[in-house]
Amino acid sequence: MNAYTYEEIEIGHTETFEVTVTEESLDAFRGITGDVNPLHRDDEFAKARGMKGHVAFGLLTASYLSALAGVYLPGKRSLVQSLEIKFASPVYPGDTLTVSGEVTEKNDAYRVLRLKVAVRNGKGEKVLRGTMQIGFTEEGHG
Amino acid sequence: MNAYTYEEIEIGHTETFEVTVTEESLDAFRGITGDVNPLHRDDEFAKARGMKGHVAFGLLTASYLSALAGVYLPGKRSLVQSLEIKFASPVYPGDTLTVSGEVTEKNDAYRVLRLKVAVRNGKGEKVLRGTMQIGFTEEGHG
Repeated sequence: MNAYTYEEIEIGHTETFEVTVTEESLDAFRGITGDVNPLHRDDEFAKARGMKGHVAFGLLTASYLSALAGVYLPGKRSLVQSLEIKFASPVYPGDTLTVSGEVTEKNDAYRVLRLKVAVRNGKGEKVLRGTMQIGFTEEGHG
Repeated sequence: MNAYTYEEIEIGHTETFEVTVTEESLDAFRGITGDVNPLHRDDEFAKARGMKGHVAFGLLTASYLSALAGVYLPGKRSLVQSLEIKFASPVYPGDTLTVSGEVTEKNDAYRVLRLKVAVRNGKGEKVLRGTMQIGFTEEGHG
């Protein structure tokens, strides 16, 4: 796990990791959230609506941004404050996604980073794009 | 599961449900995403940083918006296009959250809804607020 401080982060700093979307992760996400929508479990329902088969939850794809911030950029001291995302293309179980974030702004007054984030599928298509604002937890409150 | 059509939805339409954040849901979210950040599993780490104990992942709280759209508003035909959210207060395992969405705009040209969304804890504090843009899947592609 990375553990960058605010001072160590420079504009342009980029981190990337890969994750494969599995049926098990769809099942687990469905169990956590209660989102039993057939688009995410019923191939025939999804195909009748223009998909190749049942699709991953958009917010499952977004959930990988939790690891991007909490493990990679900035890692251990991360505290996600806000995000703005668009879902650009469907994600299917079995897809291996590349999740990336690049620091585009630092706000020294608030000690907050702004990241440009993107998730791409194996064909290089952006399936998610957006921005995240991330602060830093500070020791000394205990 | 609701199954509202675009035409059936009126400005002001509101849907609400409750969900309890469990340790098991944190564990499952950690397994799905790989976000092993100690803020979400280590009480001492979290307390040293001003929290009451280990806190839920912000994106876990956001994940309940998947059910808001896919099960409640508009339900079966939902296709989430984008979202903008801010995390306003920490969420702890054991918290029972009230997730709500209200239709604030309809775009007839694109057949897209805009929802104002909020998640409140048991004290009535907003822990998440934002907006979602939601389209509708259409049959006839199969």
